[in-house]
Amino acid sequence: MTTSSDLFAQHRDRLDAAVAACATRGYFSAFDESPSPRVYGENAAADGVAAWKSWLDGAFPLSTPGAEGTVATERSPYGFDLGVTYPRVTPAGVDALLVAAEAGKKAWRDAGPEARTGVCLEILARLHGRIFELANAVQHTSGQAFVMAFQAGGAHALDRALEAIAYAWTEMTRTPATALWEKPGRGEPLRMEKTFTVVPRGVALVIGCNTFPTWNSWPGLFASLVTGNPVVVKPHASAVLPLAITVQACQEVLAEAGFDPNLVTLAAEDPADKLAAVLAVRPEVKLIDFTGGNAFGDWLEANARQATVFTEKAGVNTVVIDSTSDFRAMCQNLAFSFSLYSGQMCTAPQNVYLPESGIATDDGVKTPAEVGAGIEAALGKLLGDDARAVELLGGVVNAGVLERLEQVGARGDVLVASRTVTHPAYADATVRTPTLVQLSAKDADVYESECFGPVAYLITTSSTEESIDLFRDTVQRHGAMTAAVYATSEPVIASMRDAALDAGVALSENLLGGVFVNQSAAYSDFHGTGANPAANASYTDGAYVASRFRVVQSRRHV
Amino acid sequence: MTTSSDLFAQHRDRLDAAVAACATRGYFSAFDESPSPRVYGENAAADGVAAWKSWLDGAFPLSTPGAEGTVATERSPYGFDLGVTYPRVTPAGVDALLVAAEAGKKAWRDAGPEARTGVCLEILARLHGRIFELANAVQHTSGQAFVMAFQAGGAHALDRALEAIAYAWTEMTRTPATALWEKPGRGEPLRMEKTFTVVPRGVALVIGCNTFPTWNSWPGLFASLVTGNPVVVKPHASAVLPLAITVQACQEVLAEAGFDPNLVTLAAEDPADKLAAVLAVRPEVKLIDFTGGNAFGDWLEANARQATVFTEKAGVNTVVIDSTSDFRAMCQNLAFSFSLYSGQMCTAPQNVYLPESGIATDDGVKTPAEVGAGIEAALGKLLGDDARAVELLGGVVNAGVLERLEQVGARGDVLVASRTVTHPAYADATVRTPTLVQLSAKDADVYESECFGPVAYLITTSSTEESIDLFRDTVQRHGAMTAAVYATSEPVIASMRDAALDAGVALSENLLGGVFVNQSAAYSDFHGTGANPAANASYTDGAYVASRFRVVQSRRHV
Repeated sequence: MTTSSDLFAQHRDRLDAAVAACATRGYFSAFDESPSPRVYGENAAADGVAAWKSWLDGAFPLSTPGAEGTVATERSPYGFDLGVTYPRVTPAGVDALLVAAEAGKKAWRDAGPEARTGVCLEILARLHGRIFELANAVQHTSGQAFVMAFQAGGAHALDRALEAIAYAWTEMTRTPATALWEKPGRGEPLRMEKTFTVVPRGVALVIGCNTFPTWNSWPGLFASLVTGNPVVVKPHASAVLPLAITVQACQEVLAEAGFDPNLVTLAAEDPADKLAAVLAVRPEVKLIDFTGGNAFGDWLEANARQATVFTEKAGVNTVVIDSTSDFRAMCQNLAFSFSLYSGQMCTAPQNVYLPESGIATDDGVKTPAEVGAGIEAALGKLLGDDARAVELLGGVVNAGVLERLEQVGARGDVLVASRTVTHPAYADATVRTPTLVQLSAKDADVYESECFGPVAYLITTSSTEESIDLFRDTVQRHGAMTAAVYATSEPVIASMRDAALDAGVALSENLLGGVFVNQSAAYSDFHGTGANPAANASYTDGAYVASRFRVVQSRRHV
Repeated sequence: MTTSSDLFAQHRDRLDAAVAACATRGYFSAFDESPSPRVYGENAAADGVAAWKSWLDGAFPLSTPGAEGTVATERSPYGFDLGVTYPRVTPAGVDALLVAAEAGKKAWRDAGPEARTGVCLEILARLHGRIFELANAVQHTSGQAFVMAFQAGGAHALDRALEAIAYAWTEMTRTPATALWEKPGRGEPLRMEKTFTVVPRGVALVIGCNTFPTWNSWPGLFASLVTGNPVVVKPHASAVLPLAITVQACQEVLAEAGFDPNLVTLAAEDPADKLAAVLAVRPEVKLIDFTGGNAFGDWLEANARQATVFTEKAGVNTVVIDSTSDFRAMCQNLAFSFSLYSGQMCTAPQNVYLPESGIATDDGVKTPAEVGAGIEAALGKLLGDDARAVELLGGVVNAGVLERLEQVGARGDVLVASRTVTHPAYADATVRTPTLVQLSAKDADVYESECFGPVAYLITTSSTEESIDLFRDTVQRHGAMTAAVYATSEPVIASMRDAALDAGVALSENLLGGVFVNQSAAYSDFHGTGANPAANASYTDGAYVASRFRVVQSRRHV
């Protein structure tokens, strides 16, 4: 049997490298993001498809304590039902589920940080071994195109998980397991030996989302698990499979290392049961990680008072354009950001402010209409060919996105219309190009809400100063995951940086090349700040891990 | 003018030593706990008394924005009114107070971690320079005897404050201020320069308590201030002066270093105004530190949802006696713990469980009655002489303590009666020795609530196993700040350690000498765990500081 300390030793270098990267915040990745056969082998892609297909139209081999019957709730945005059935947990099964979740808690606690870290790192290695299978599962639940599903849903998600484990490791080990305390006095010093033990908070609940089932769930899952907490994973009903595979890998490694596999369980549901709300207020549940809409996120923050709640909700991501040294490159960069996964990213830009008098560029002053035309041209170049377009756009994840897209034209002048794209491989896939709608500063009722999906607003203001003020004010009140600025003047950049600090949002400046505002790099870029209403937490900082456990000491004379 | 970077350089060694001590958790103190003239100089004690006396019956020279009129609410437990008046803040003044608190926030944020840390360390140095004045102020508000007021209210409080600053410094600087990110690619690597800025959460509210106005307020005050948050200090109406002196020192150093002195303000009140409840739910208030009773602490946790709330409330501190190698020393150690500051410590033991069949000792088996007699003898030795007794007992802090003490006899058999002690120097002081009341396991209705003050229960059980089960169960449900065990058998110790991990409470084992269960040493012992209902936080761990700020980044190509 491989012991958990073998596992720790085996993965120690990877852990150390991640810890070091988090401290320097330079570039690091432990999992190659290229799905190339040169990296992963000739058969990896085909094997991954086969592994994924083997789950379709069948019962996924997981058993969840307290479950009764099964559910099959997933349909690929590419136009077909997955047909995978999972054990169904209803509110009536929650008692049994939580009893089972807690059964292995003490042994997991007593195993200590090294053992738990070894197990978690081995789980990542197993998931990495199934990265093509996972990528297919993510593609056909979220609608992401394959390469994005491989990268964001596979390699980058693994990096974010490793980052969370690295932060938790640092946090758990900053207090030594034992210490000698020796206080000098008149006679003999007072001497005590002290023991410090990391203890978990309780059961952790991870509530997954439809668009990034792995990337947004793994950091919380592994941060809670490695710090000693049993984890109940409640997937979005439309994106179960990636998390079912995840739970399967967790249970496999836990069991092999001698722990109770029910330390990680899958709580699939019929959405009508509103299982997340039932689980979230249970006294056993002490940690909750949630990604999703504001309504339920706010409800969790207000009602799950027995738990520490980490939320990533929605906001209005903003771009302020003052001027640029490369108009074409700016338009291309923005067009890519609007198009990537059809804008269905919590980090996709929505509100683009620019002065009605236009912006200075390397190609002369451009009016708002000319900026709209520039972006339209860039979108045309990027998305003109359907076969190429679908690899960037992916599929529309659900009917809500489509409805919003269809209604948005009524809210302002359509500068760039959305176009229906036919997927060459999936005739029933729902694919749309982004729309760009012109508004002005007075249309706050439109642009102050998130319109999740392929919708962006070009909002004219009286000046860059007004743009920055609107940015600061809107984000302070409604939140944002990202912000960007285009400006050739240092004072404007400085003013925008200051506003971004006030608004508590990460800023990208003058992105003209291969980095996009909606992308964040693990170990270097924080995702979310916790400093504005869009999220109360960040991947990953000390605050994200420090309250997932407590330290309990004992002391005695020596 | 001394700049804040001068201050940082000046105190850097002290900071580094504190950071190192927190990591090793060995013995460290930056502030001498001995009030001896050999340490502090021949005139220090007399000068301290004079400085303290100069405040009595006069207006304390602080101005608080929004205040109107004054309040004088303090009476020494040694029998006289202090007569100090402070600016009175009423609910009507809160708007103006918070506007003033926030006015300096941006400059304080922009000054950065080094500047803020330098200022905070200089404040500690100024407070240290006024340690005798502070000790008198603590003595005559809390009722602590002078030496304890000097140590717990002065030197140890400074150490706890420094510890909080050290943790916050480590946390703020674990992310570099700037980083270079370089991602290799096919052609030129992608290169970005990134900036990371610590931003505050908002206004911090510190709600002080009657018994430890400095020790329990300073960690939160300095943890919030050093991380960039303006702090409003709402003292307990009966213990204002120690925090008025604190705020005065803060304002003095802030102003000298060029910052807005209103970054720290004193919000003294007429208690009828219930000012803390008004401040606690204001949207500007994002951090709250509270020490006090369960009712208001629970209310804060449930209602101040816009803030991160750190509470230290009450619990039932427990001792399990199974056996001992030194009966006399055990009785002496327990008697001291019951007597110190008349048991008016959140860490004082209350519930002592022991088997009805008695305990094995070096002096044969002792029945519960004999254990009671042993403790009574130890108390007699410790407190037999009034002049010596008052230096350990201090004064009864308020009428509530006296009422509970007078009623407790009705709840069980009084093994040791409380005695009224006459203070040789203060005829009107209220001084009482502890009482010890016998109960049995079935008296849960009595021993499951905290009886704050000089009251301890000797509770007979059927066995040590039952004692440990009761300990685990009672602490899980009602909380505890401390626990202790006396046992000569390793399996009993192991079983108690395990129960303490389950209950989430710090354990002291076989204390027979100069360390007492109610004492915790900064940098080495955590105070509270956050893992049981008595407190949701700990002095000081990563979780205590990590969510007091956020990190906001910006990035650009290079």
